[in-house]
Amino acid sequence: MPNNTNMRIGLPVVCFVWEVAMIILFGIFVRYDEFSSPLWPEYMKQHNITSESENDFYYRYPSFQDVHVMIFVGFGFLMTFLKLYGFGGVGLNFLMAAFGIQWALLMQGWLHSFDTGYILIGVENLINADFCVGSVAIAFGALLGKISPVQLMIMTLFQVTLFSVNEWVILTKLHAIDAGGSMTIHTFGAYFGLTVAWILNRPHLEQTNDKEVSVYHSDLFAMIGTLYLWMYWPSFNSAISYHGDGQSRAAINTYCSLAACVLTTVAISSAVDKKGKLFMVHIQNATLAGGVAVGTAAEMMLTPYGSLIVGFICGIISTLGFKYLSPCLHKLRLHDTCGVHNLHAMPGVIGGIVGAITAAAATAEVYGGEIGLSKMFRYEELGYERSSSTQGGYQAAGIAVSLAFAFVGGTIVGFILKLPIWGAPADENCFDDGVYWEVPYEECDDSALKPYAVHVPKQVDSV
Amino acid sequence: MPNNTNMRIGLPVVCFVWEVAMIILFGIFVRYDEFSSPLWPEYMKQHNITSESENDFYYRYPSFQDVHVMIFVGFGFLMTFLKLYGFGGVGLNFLMAAFGIQWALLMQGWLHSFDTGYILIGVENLINADFCVGSVAIAFGALLGKISPVQLMIMTLFQVTLFSVNEWVILTKLHAIDAGGSMTIHTFGAYFGLTVAWILNRPHLEQTNDKEVSVYHSDLFAMIGTLYLWMYWPSFNSAISYHGDGQSRAAINTYCSLAACVLTTVAISSAVDKKGKLFMVHIQNATLAGGVAVGTAAEMMLTPYGSLIVGFICGIISTLGFKYLSPCLHKLRLHDTCGVHNLHAMPGVIGGIVGAITAAAATAEVYGGEIGLSKMFRYEELGYERSSSTQGGYQAAGIAVSLAFAFVGGTIVGFILKLPIWGAPADENCFDDGVYWEVPYEECDDSALKPYAVHVPKQVDSV
Amino acid sequence: MPNNTNMRIGLPVVCFVWEVAMIILFGIFVRYDEFSSPLWPEYMKQHNITSESENDFYYRYPSFQDVHVMIFVGFGFLMTFLKLYGFGGVGLNFLMAAFGIQWALLMQGWLHSFDTGYILIGVENLINADFCVGSVAIAFGALLGKISPVQLMIMTLFQVTLFSVNEWVILTKLHAIDAGGSMTIHTFGAYFGLTVAWILNRPHLEQTNDKEVSVYHSDLFAMIGTLYLWMYWPSFNSAISYHGDGQSRAAINTYCSLAACVLTTVAISSAVDKKGKLFMVHIQNATLAGGVAVGTAAEMMLTPYGSLIVGFICGIISTLGFKYLSPCLHKLRLHDTCGVHNLHAMPGVIGGIVGAITAAAATAEVYGGEIGLSKMFRYEELGYERSSSTQGGYQAAGIAVSLAFAFVGGTIVGFILKLPIWGAPADENCFDDGVYWEVPYEECDDSALKPYAVHVPKQVDSV
Repeated sequence: MPNNTNMRIGLPVVCFVWEVAMIILFGIFVRYDEFSSPLWPEYMKQHNITSESENDFYYRYPSFQDVHVMIFVGFGFLMTFLKLYGFGGVGLNFLMAAFGIQWALLMQGWLHSFDTGYILIGVENLINADFCVGSVAIAFGALLGKISPVQLMIMTLFQVTLFSVNEWVILTKLHAIDAGGSMTIHTFGAYFGLTVAWILNRPHLEQTNDKEVSVYHSDLFAMIGTLYLWMYWPSFNSAISYHGDGQSRAAINTYCSLAACVLTTVAISSAVDKKGKLFMVHIQNATLAGGVAVGTAAEMMLTPYGSLIVGFICGIISTLGFKYLSPCLHKLRLHDTCGVHNLHAMPGVIGGIVGAITAAAATAEVYGGEIGLSKMFRYEELGYERSSSTQGGYQAAGIAVSLAFAFVGGTIVGFILKLPIWGAPADENCFDDGVYWEVPYEECDDSALKPYAVHVPKQVDSV
Repeated sequence: MPNNTNMRIGLPVVCFVWEVAMIILFGIFVRYDEFSSPLWPEYMKQHNITSESENDFYYRYPSFQDVHVMIFVGFGFLMTFLKLYGFGGVGLNFLMAAFGIQWALLMQGWLHSFDTGYILIGVENLINADFCVGSVAIAFGALLGKISPVQLMIMTLFQVTLFSVNEWVILTKLHAIDAGGSMTIHTFGAYFGLTVAWILNRPHLEQTNDKEVSVYHSDLFAMIGTLYLWMYWPSFNSAISYHGDGQSRAAINTYCSLAACVLTTVAISSAVDKKGKLFMVHIQNATLAGGVAVGTAAEMMLTPYGSLIVGFICGIISTLGFKYLSPCLHKLRLHDTCGVHNLHAMPGVIGGIVGAITAAAATAEVYGGEIGLSKMFRYEELGYERSSSTQGGYQAAGIAVSLAFAFVGGTIVGFILKLPIWGAPADENCFDDGVYWEVPYEECDDSALKPYAVHVPKQVDSV
Repeated sequence: MPNNTNMRIGLPVVCFVWEVAMIILFGIFVRYDEFSSPLWPEYMKQHNITSESENDFYYRYPSFQDVHVMIFVGFGFLMTFLKLYGFGGVGLNFLMAAFGIQWALLMQGWLHSFDTGYILIGVENLINADFCVGSVAIAFGALLGKISPVQLMIMTLFQVTLFSVNEWVILTKLHAIDAGGSMTIHTFGAYFGLTVAWILNRPHLEQTNDKEVSVYHSDLFAMIGTLYLWMYWPSFNSAISYHGDGQSRAAINTYCSLAACVLTTVAISSAVDKKGKLFMVHIQNATLAGGVAVGTAAEMMLTPYGSLIVGFICGIISTLGFKYLSPCLHKLRLHDTCGVHNLHAMPGVIGGIVGAITAAAATAEVYGGEIGLSKMFRYEELGYERSSSTQGGYQAAGIAVSLAFAFVGGTIVGFILKLPIWGAPADENCFDDGVYWEVPYEECDDSALKPYAVHVPKQVDSV
């Protein structure tokens, strides 16, 4: 017997209850930080700040807006590539992210910005909330078209929670550096989503469903998402770096890595096709792997040519993944709609490794003396200096922690989502907006087929 | 006898004459302000400014660009949801806004930036001009598909004028606060447009026209508009706030309100559908109501949870409006193409009320002392301190003034536009680009129907 | 015998070899500049800088991101207007630009940022690299649909090289001002591309190919490109201007010019159509001419009304060019797919002339004294003061130099690209993605025609 996909009770209840919970928790806990409170002028006096331009808002707001676009338009439109699932791709991502950022403000707030009973938020918290939701968007990519809105909301609740704890362990306990989130966002998000997808496996999907395809214009919509992710990735990786050279360097490194990644993606995409033709899925996705893979090391002294090398390698690996690895995984019952394993999982792990190596290779000479090295790796927060090789070890440990959180958390959440009460679509209705959306409808009996031409305005002559 | 919709004389004449007038008026009146003039280095010396970063350009330009995107891509693409009116939605909005910003620079300049015979413009003027044009875009939403380009240009001329006077009364005479324009932009713009739409009522539109529908891809184009409005709304509400904590707080409040609004929009959209399905029109529009409704209070101490509550309520009201109120208004001969009553009018009034309440509840304690309170409500400009309840009263008066300007102005302009000389489309040609645009044409006799498939590139095999 | 369009060997080889070359050259030459290096805190101390906000990153990064969007989404989507060449438009522009920015960082670096054996890069270099690639995107516009990816890559290699030398002659040797690139980007890029197009002329194209047309939705995709170019052009023209009033003035002038340009474009588009209808190609392109034409003079004292006049004139000329000049050029065997002659070539030359006149008319009085005048025209870099008329002469010489580089360079590159070994498409396959892309395929024998309706999700009823 098929699942009841009517969301009329479940979805409103989830949305209402969770939003009311957000309001109550925000009311108890969330206040403005020093940069956003009317006490800012007082703060300026106390800290001898003479210019409003020192407000953190001005250092981070442009990057915040770029990141915001990546989450909502970037991920949203990237997921419109299916011919019948455009509403679901962009619309459910919108819903998920709007809830996720609220819950992330709380979870990350309790763990990172909690002070005298309150979570004090500013623009940096908004960026971090967007980052957290980016990881859910990645996991959603593995599940696109196969879960209900209610399942997505439940997954978001759990994943944001796990993300925040994982991030806290990596950044605060291990004291690893991960400003662009290769480990916390991409590795965790992708393997979490893949684990859930593996548990929610639909063994007969291919036999009963032929809708997992794109059409010409859906591929163009998806390119909007791709390009916004690609263009704004330098902002993503630099958004929460140190003011000054840290942000500048992170942007440059990401720019370089992404540029190189495009060329090797195109090269491999053409080389693996027997007619040498480019495949849109590769261009839409693998071109972004270079941004993922410099996420950890972007603000470090990766150097521009080091960034090119990372992008070079990741374009190759990611495109080969789409061509050869995804079909294999599919046979192992791992269906990954958007190919997040190729775009986020492998490049994310590579990014973690690149970060560990770069950290282990760090010398005072390269970082402008001991002070610069200490600043780069936030040793002052730690209270003692680590050797670079030790720091590299902790960086590497961060990868392992992310993987552990992803696999264990994904398994638990996967089984919760597998309960037959959340309105998941039947196999034959996967990848079809018609299940959860009112769609502009046209008669589909053959005699009444409305061809595209009638959508073109008629020539109305003036009198 | 139908109207003559041939624009070959009228549209060029209007565009040319008005642009020449702009050039003459700019030549007489418009000069660069202190931040944009070569005298800026001199100004720096006189005011002991040591850093170029104190130039207002750097405080406001990123927000300006975001607002600019909202006006042209946000409103423009939001209005492409009709299957046959995409060119008109994005193209006529483009024309209207390009003229409107010039006239707004003059009108707002005369009223707000006039100094020793000249209007001195800087980046803040550009933002305000964009804001003004946003109000025309809102009014255009009520009229989409039913007016000619010439009517739109005439409406823009009058509406920008009225907007500027209304804004001057509210901000300068009443000394109300309205940084994000709940009253000046949304309440005024929406009720102005609705009044015009009511006067231009077409009683037989439904019987003769079946084009007011969307198709799958037009709904996706519209989502581009929605998302850019949603993402950049924090910039909209913070763009002209005080430097420092004012801008930061306005951005945070708007971010929170919009996030909550998405959840209640989805909840109601699903709850009011008998199959629990989501309706794209709700997601495209009602999700934005939270941004409208914190327009007045965004920079005040609305608090993050207060913002969530406002967004929560407005998502509900706006979605219910689309479902139940719009059909009622339609029966009362008020046809509102984009549903601006639900998205801008009601949330705009709510935003004014929220602002009045927040202002009335303001205490020195919350605003960092008497100085902070005085700064927030610009009492230094006023020359004397008001009690908070008095300020709240003036805020409330601002709503009434906006409504009065909208109804009276809209009535007058409506009757001007009703004159049968402006090339309005016949009922059966409403919502159809073919009237005013050369459209890519395909034969529509049945034998020659060109289905979509022929738009798909052929597989061209290499040799 | 048709060309072998199978790219399976050529494209991967070109991409790999060139990317490896980039990595080697970056490894030898490219390092971080003072704003991006860990030595920045040291630099701050040495220069008595007390605020991180003085890092050039914060002055230029928001503009950089806007320019980045213009190159990839702006030019990319503007070139999706053909019904069967959307992948090629946005995808090949992506490939070209990703390679071009790397090579431009090197070429421009050697000529402008070379210091003690290294190219020191910061955010300004990223902007300049994007600018350079903009000129290639313009040239690509003239060739859209008629060249292979390998041809495009080869052209990019040569054009970036020529661009950089031309730019160096104009900016360093002639010491002309051209912050928005009317001469270096638009005049050079357009005439270079047109020269190549003229040499690659396909005399029988029209007889064998009927694919050079748009469809309704492809025109809407193109409007995304148009609007992003239009909205962010103020950032383009101000991105590398002097800090402070220079950037602010450049943004204001560009904003004004573009606004005026829209009105005259619409006026002429309607006036030249016998039914007075607007033509999408004009709106998509000619509205941008105002931005091109203030590229040289944007940071000068062009005044707001001067900017309006420039935009006014260019909207007229550009639209008339599309209507009357392009068909003539076509008869002269110059096929210009995107009409870059109308949008970039003529307005670029006008921009150079406007810059020369504005420079020649410069007086100390208007520029805030001799110091201001000297600063504006960078005479301190030159080591001596020029008279304004002399500077105007050098500005004019810059136009001639750009034209010479374009014609000579374009001729040489055109003949290289004419070699029958680069996989150019046959005439009948021009403007068709099927040659170089795997496209979502549908059977095209008549009985199996899949009309658009089947792309619309079915109504799936819940149980």
